[in-house]
Amino acid sequence: MSFAILFATNSPNYSKALVELCGELYPEVAAYLPEDEGAQKATVAACWAPQQDLLACYPNLQLVHSVGAGVDHIPEDILLSSTPVCRVVDDGQKWAMFEYALYGILHVQRNFDKAVMEQASQNWQRYPIKTASSVRVGILGMGELGGFVAQQLAQFGYSTMGWSRSEKRLDEVACFYGEDGLAQMLPQTDVLINLLPLNQHTQGILNWDLMAQLPKGAYLINCGRGGHLVASDLIAAIEQEHLRGALLDVFPVEPLPSSDPLWQTKGVIITPHVASDASKSEIIHQLVRNGKRLANGQSPLNQIDSKRGY
Amino acid sequence: MSFAILFATNSPNYSKALVELCGELYPEVAAYLPEDEGAQKATVAACWAPQQDLLACYPNLQLVHSVGAGVDHIPEDILLSSTPVCRVVDDGQKWAMFEYALYGILHVQRNFDKAVMEQASQNWQRYPIKTASSVRVGILGMGELGGFVAQQLAQFGYSTMGWSRSEKRLDEVACFYGEDGLAQMLPQTDVLINLLPLNQHTQGILNWDLMAQLPKGAYLINCGRGGHLVASDLIAAIEQEHLRGALLDVFPVEPLPSSDPLWQTKGVIITPHVASDASKSEIIHQLVRNGKRLANGQSPLNQIDSKRGY
Repeated sequence: MSFAILFATNSPNYSKALVELCGELYPEVAAYLPEDEGAQKATVAACWAPQQDLLACYPNLQLVHSVGAGVDHIPEDILLSSTPVCRVVDDGQKWAMFEYALYGILHVQRNFDKAVMEQASQNWQRYPIKTASSVRVGILGMGELGGFVAQQLAQFGYSTMGWSRSEKRLDEVACFYGEDGLAQMLPQTDVLINLLPLNQHTQGILNWDLMAQLPKGAYLINCGRGGHLVASDLIAAIEQEHLRGALLDVFPVEPLPSSDPLWQTKGVIITPHVASDASKSEIIHQLVRNGKRLANGQSPLNQIDSKRGY
Repeated sequence: MSFAILFATNSPNYSKALVELCGELYPEVAAYLPEDEGAQKATVAACWAPQQDLLACYPNLQLVHSVGAGVDHIPEDILLSSTPVCRVVDDGQKWAMFEYALYGILHVQRNFDKAVMEQASQNWQRYPIKTASSVRVGILGMGELGGFVAQQLAQFGYSTMGWSRSEKRLDEVACFYGEDGLAQMLPQTDVLINLLPLNQHTQGILNWDLMAQLPKGAYLINCGRGGHLVASDLIAAIEQEHLRGALLDVFPVEPLPSSDPLWQTKGVIITPHVASDASKSEIIHQLVRNGKRLANGQSPLNQIDSKRGY
């Protein structure tokens, strides 16, 4: 076995923490930071938003590995190169995403948003209790995360629908696909959850056209990427009371600038990109597993189709 | 079969709606409002907070039936009489209670309370994601509702503990009982959920003495009864930052008066007694089922032990 990992994320502290954990868990594996002597020997790059010329600077790389579930932060010339690109698929991360989506659904299903608003004016205003089965949840993206969240929500009792570009089948989830499928699903969706990958097909997909197809009073949960959402369209849809509100975890620029109007849009909850993440130890396990597979001539797991971008 | 139901709740509109639904579902069953001619013939009284002299006014009553899960609204002379007292046990109601408790736990586990606070000042403040298994949930009351909620929370992944007056056993739930058990459970409890029945033993149980035994930063969810909580102690515990906050659904006087300081206590969410309720059709089904059982000489289901009050 001969492989070495370069940790190259856009946070030096995070890269350093991963190197240290790798040393603890796998003392036999060589782990480098970009500035370390010998880093050029790296065969695997563990990345978040790496430099454009990564492959040129580290000529021995045989694998580029996202430390997260998405690869939209990886420059296009790397995605389109012949070097395989993999990502981390973590059960804990999937469950955390389900929890986040579930919280957002309960928030409107059980009228906690209304309760908090009434509380501000000391107003006791009862309302009927809505059951999970009466809430129609639509999920955009039926990949590892979206598919998992959809199945968990279905098991919890929600009327669950899922949409993907190409046809998929999932137990207990009504599956839609393609342009026509999207047009069929949206008018039946009380809560829309975005878990699409970000690429040229999905950039700005959460726009006025899409929102207009949702029934009046629908709620949006965006835990995909900031680039999916046209924020000005969301704000308009809420101001016109077409949408009830939104739970947003991701933004085109993070941290979200303090001047951004989303912070103060009524009915919008902002969370600071904390819907889910892969645990550090799970990242290390999967990096090392894929490094070993490469060294043994096996294909790596959780490789993305670079042309599709997921 | 010979029985007739009197609907005597403290809301004339609600009683009327139940009479109408009973007529639709069981046209063969005689259903009365208190003012109806022939109401004296009633053998079953379907009650919420009925009049003290109910049994004297309706001499043919063989059964007093709460239309909810609790019986604390039924006057003591009725509870202590020889007439059996029953209550409604509804799976939908139990699930709604689980949803409510789960929302409250996710609210603090996933730091939505902090996110909303930071949002008010346009502040992007990340924090580590806490897993369900790292959250220790303690439930007071292991009856129909408490036991169900405890088991669902355990299956969801929380480290779940339950407390009851007398010894109970539940799969996946660490069970404590009696005074000593309470003292053992409280210091390990990050989120405390009250689902006790209200009686002379439990009145005011959520007081300073109990809260002081919780770890710093614990969170309280009260979906039992308002009489369980000493509100001034809760406000003091939150102001001293011993408790993180509370989710409260029930109050000694409902609607909660607009002058009540709880409305404006930081970290407290007030909901207007909507954590769960039995569906009207389920109430009717259970009333009629018990009425038929009585008429056939069988003992009614879901009868309470009047001396224990649950």
